[in-house]
Amino acid sequence: MAERVEMPLWGWGYADHARQLSALAESQLYERLGLSDAASSPAAISDFVISPSRLSEGQIDRLARVVGGSCVSHDPAMRLLRSVGKSYPDLVRMRSGGAVMLPDAVVLPSSSEQVHELLRVCVAESIAVVPFGGGTSVVGGVDPLLGSHSAVISLDLGSMVGLSNIDVNSRIATFLPGTNGPQVEELLNPQGLTLGHFPQSFEFATVGGFVATRSAGQASTGYGRIDKNVVGLELVAPTGVTAFKAMPGSAAGPDLRQLLVGSEGTLGVITEASLSVAKLPDVTDDRGWFVKSFAAGRALLQDLEQAGCAPAVSRLSDEQETEVSLLMAGGGKLQSALSGYLRLRRVQGGCLMITGFEGSRQSVEAQLRAALPIIHRHGAVAVGHGIGRAWRKGRYSGPYLRDVLMGRGLLVDTLETAAPWSDLERLYNSVGSALRENLASFGGDPIVMCHVSHLYQSGASLYFTWIGRQSGVTAEEQIANWQKVKSAAGDGIVAGGGTITHHHAIGHDHAAWMESEVGSQGLALLRAAKSELDPAGIMNPGKLLP
Amino acid sequence: MAERVEMPLWGWGYADHARQLSALAESQLYERLGLSDAASSPAAISDFVISPSRLSEGQIDRLARVVGGSCVSHDPAMRLLRSVGKSYPDLVRMRSGGAVMLPDAVVLPSSSEQVHELLRVCVAESIAVVPFGGGTSVVGGVDPLLGSHSAVISLDLGSMVGLSNIDVNSRIATFLPGTNGPQVEELLNPQGLTLGHFPQSFEFATVGGFVATRSAGQASTGYGRIDKNVVGLELVAPTGVTAFKAMPGSAAGPDLRQLLVGSEGTLGVITEASLSVAKLPDVTDDRGWFVKSFAAGRALLQDLEQAGCAPAVSRLSDEQETEVSLLMAGGGKLQSALSGYLRLRRVQGGCLMITGFEGSRQSVEAQLRAALPIIHRHGAVAVGHGIGRAWRKGRYSGPYLRDVLMGRGLLVDTLETAAPWSDLERLYNSVGSALRENLASFGGDPIVMCHVSHLYQSGASLYFTWIGRQSGVTAEEQIANWQKVKSAAGDGIVAGGGTITHHHAIGHDHAAWMESEVGSQGLALLRAAKSELDPAGIMNPGKLLP
Repeated sequence: MAERVEMPLWGWGYADHARQLSALAESQLYERLGLSDAASSPAAISDFVISPSRLSEGQIDRLARVVGGSCVSHDPAMRLLRSVGKSYPDLVRMRSGGAVMLPDAVVLPSSSEQVHELLRVCVAESIAVVPFGGGTSVVGGVDPLLGSHSAVISLDLGSMVGLSNIDVNSRIATFLPGTNGPQVEELLNPQGLTLGHFPQSFEFATVGGFVATRSAGQASTGYGRIDKNVVGLELVAPTGVTAFKAMPGSAAGPDLRQLLVGSEGTLGVITEASLSVAKLPDVTDDRGWFVKSFAAGRALLQDLEQAGCAPAVSRLSDEQETEVSLLMAGGGKLQSALSGYLRLRRVQGGCLMITGFEGSRQSVEAQLRAALPIIHRHGAVAVGHGIGRAWRKGRYSGPYLRDVLMGRGLLVDTLETAAPWSDLERLYNSVGSALRENLASFGGDPIVMCHVSHLYQSGASLYFTWIGRQSGVTAEEQIANWQKVKSAAGDGIVAGGGTITHHHAIGHDHAAWMESEVGSQGLALLRAAKSELDPAGIMNPGKLLP
Repeated sequence: MAERVEMPLWGWGYADHARQLSALAESQLYERLGLSDAASSPAAISDFVISPSRLSEGQIDRLARVVGGSCVSHDPAMRLLRSVGKSYPDLVRMRSGGAVMLPDAVVLPSSSEQVHELLRVCVAESIAVVPFGGGTSVVGGVDPLLGSHSAVISLDLGSMVGLSNIDVNSRIATFLPGTNGPQVEELLNPQGLTLGHFPQSFEFATVGGFVATRSAGQASTGYGRIDKNVVGLELVAPTGVTAFKAMPGSAAGPDLRQLLVGSEGTLGVITEASLSVAKLPDVTDDRGWFVKSFAAGRALLQDLEQAGCAPAVSRLSDEQETEVSLLMAGGGKLQSALSGYLRLRRVQGGCLMITGFEGSRQSVEAQLRAALPIIHRHGAVAVGHGIGRAWRKGRYSGPYLRDVLMGRGLLVDTLETAAPWSDLERLYNSVGSALRENLASFGGDPIVMCHVSHLYQSGASLYFTWIGRQSGVTAEEQIANWQKVKSAAGDGIVAGGGTITHHHAIGHDHAAWMESEVGSQGLALLRAAKSELDPAGIMNPGKLLP
């Protein structure tokens, strides 16, 4: 099975997948936002203040007795690697060096029993526990916060990898929590199966993380969000093991699986998840289209979804994202070729839509037979399979590009939300203005772009990417600037009728909006669940709950 | 809007829809189980001991101040009508007369605010509250149990009826809780929409009941179980209002909607539910088929579902149910005509399958194009649209027939479960033997029949109907006999790897199996939620939790 790869401290991805800006993108970003000439050098390990571990020798000994001495690490590099996810503030801190919050040890259990035993030790010793899967959180989900405890460990699930069971006939695969995206597909594909879960973090994120954060992937319109795919799971909490066997449907009271899915490590550690998986598609038919406006494209996607024939991948960029994508991807040549073609077909400006139909040959033909008349009726202009395939090829490249832009001194982040179809226009405007106004306060001509990423009968999600000037010099100033924009955008989501997060989860960064999301009674229910499973409050302090 | 109709105390349905047994069914049931010659007369209201209300005048006054005097009823007939659902033990008690448990009053609030105010009074006065929708529970869900309280009221939601909002564009309809099945369709159909939720209790069951019991309907393979359709809801608990706005998808922590869906009145009163609805189908294509065995039919349905082209209605009877259905429906003439036809086509014995494809003309054509080759590949023999249409016409008739059989001295009930595809054969055998052995202990040749009623990618549900001799004379003896069979069947479900209920809910009758369903940690989570929302424990005592 593919080995786990460590990402760089200060950024994203496989070392050999680094991206570069096209000359055209460089010049435009320079004009609009004053992109710096050369990339700044991120801090090296020696640039950090490595605080001594707060764990006593006795405590380390107790932890080591559970997992073995070699599975309790104090190595500064390892503690640094497990001290952050990949949010903008995380990366600012890691680029800057200096004093940062660190877990006092990184502990690698190899079984559910070891996890249980570790939690017992941590309760007894008042040690906070931060479960760590792929470390891809963009919302501060793995920040090593102490809460009211004396020390904090990173509980690294990287040794609990693989299938613990597979029922090919029922299409149910039970995974250990540390299994990452590529490993999932490597285990399923030879059986003719796929999870169909391809978030942008796919290369690193894990099953435990998918389930703990209620994630969605780029093909979730077809294969379903992870919460729809969870049919069973096991969670080890300080007070014991909660396990629900795989079941297709039940009316036996509230669905407690859905109380654990999305619990973000605050109730316990997900040690196993049984997922409903799908047949590996024989055919993937990717296409690019142009529609005349973002609103027209949304109406098109709504019709497709409500007619029951939306493709597995259904994406629509707004005008700004369309322009930037063409700029970033092919540079000027592709853009002008496309513009020429589209002028010919009398669509100007316009928005790029990507459709990815997947399935058996017969099923894809049937889907196309149903979908194409709707697509054409809305006046979409086909721009070929090439642009669709290019999208698929570059589908995980966003976070790589972020590193480039951060290195050149820009403020860059993404956020996502969802709402019923009728509220999308209002939500789009509300979040867009909040982002543009606040980014503009730092000078330059900020870029705020958006795409529709997931479709539902009742609504859709909106995914925003925003790039502005970073006027801050120190890490603190840079994070304060980010926080200003982030706060305004979160308020804009609430004002626009959206959910504070469609698939990035709450973590630390969205916790302030949880009350507007679920109300005081909802918070009380979450706190009641936490008191029951984690009365000592050791599990992932400072996340999910405000 | 259609008026609410009261069912008879002792049985089911509209008075003018009563069923009769065919002569052939009569003679076969006489031979196998000693059907009595004539129907026994159920008790009249005067045959019951009407206990005086335990509510003091002061308490009645406080309740009346909230809802108005005319909305607090002490009428013996009304108290009797609200004292039971429609389970076998419920009907035995109502047929027998004598002393029964009664709510001390029936209270009809007309708004969410009144519900909240009523709960405040009930907490202050230690009065238990049983929410009452359509009263169709077959698991003791509305039994007026006192718990540790001094009195109990039936909180009748029959005055909270209709749409509180409809967003046709997003296909989200928000209903008040007392809106029943026919009223739901009456409100949606003129907008070109349908909820597509047609349980056998459709004629009487309500939206609040659907959501509180996590119900599924006969077309849920196509339109989804109610829990999949809930996008928002409001629950009024003794401690306050919990409300979640309609949202197509979110990653904002655990899905608390799914903690309230299925809470069966134990956490509070569902006062509003926002449901994702569907386009009203232009075409319904119902067909009957014969397959050579139950196992062969299950394999066929699994292939259809996993290929993504299962019809909205997908049902498969086992050999015994096929025989009895033909006997009950058309009597000997239809059966022998069919037998002749099938002998000709070389299928003997065999199992009846019903498919109901629904949608636009184009979509039904596409579904058939995908499904028919699979159906034919499995060797199914078409027996025409007539038998499919007959099924649709008689789809709500089961409970009417139960009254006839109970009146003629038989022990008759249904139960349902679900499991992954790989476990279905074991589950079918485990439950079937438990039912047959225990029913046989009362003499005669019991009838145990089963059908597959709902399909999922990962599994399916099994629905059993069982008919045996009722050797008990008094109500107590009859209920004890039923309990013996019910207990064995429940244990058989657990042993066979199924869920204790797929869509009937837990109520009082399944509570004993909740621990095997969700474990002690699961029960602790449910109790924690209850302590939070209903610390005084007034909400529907004795239900859901063992």
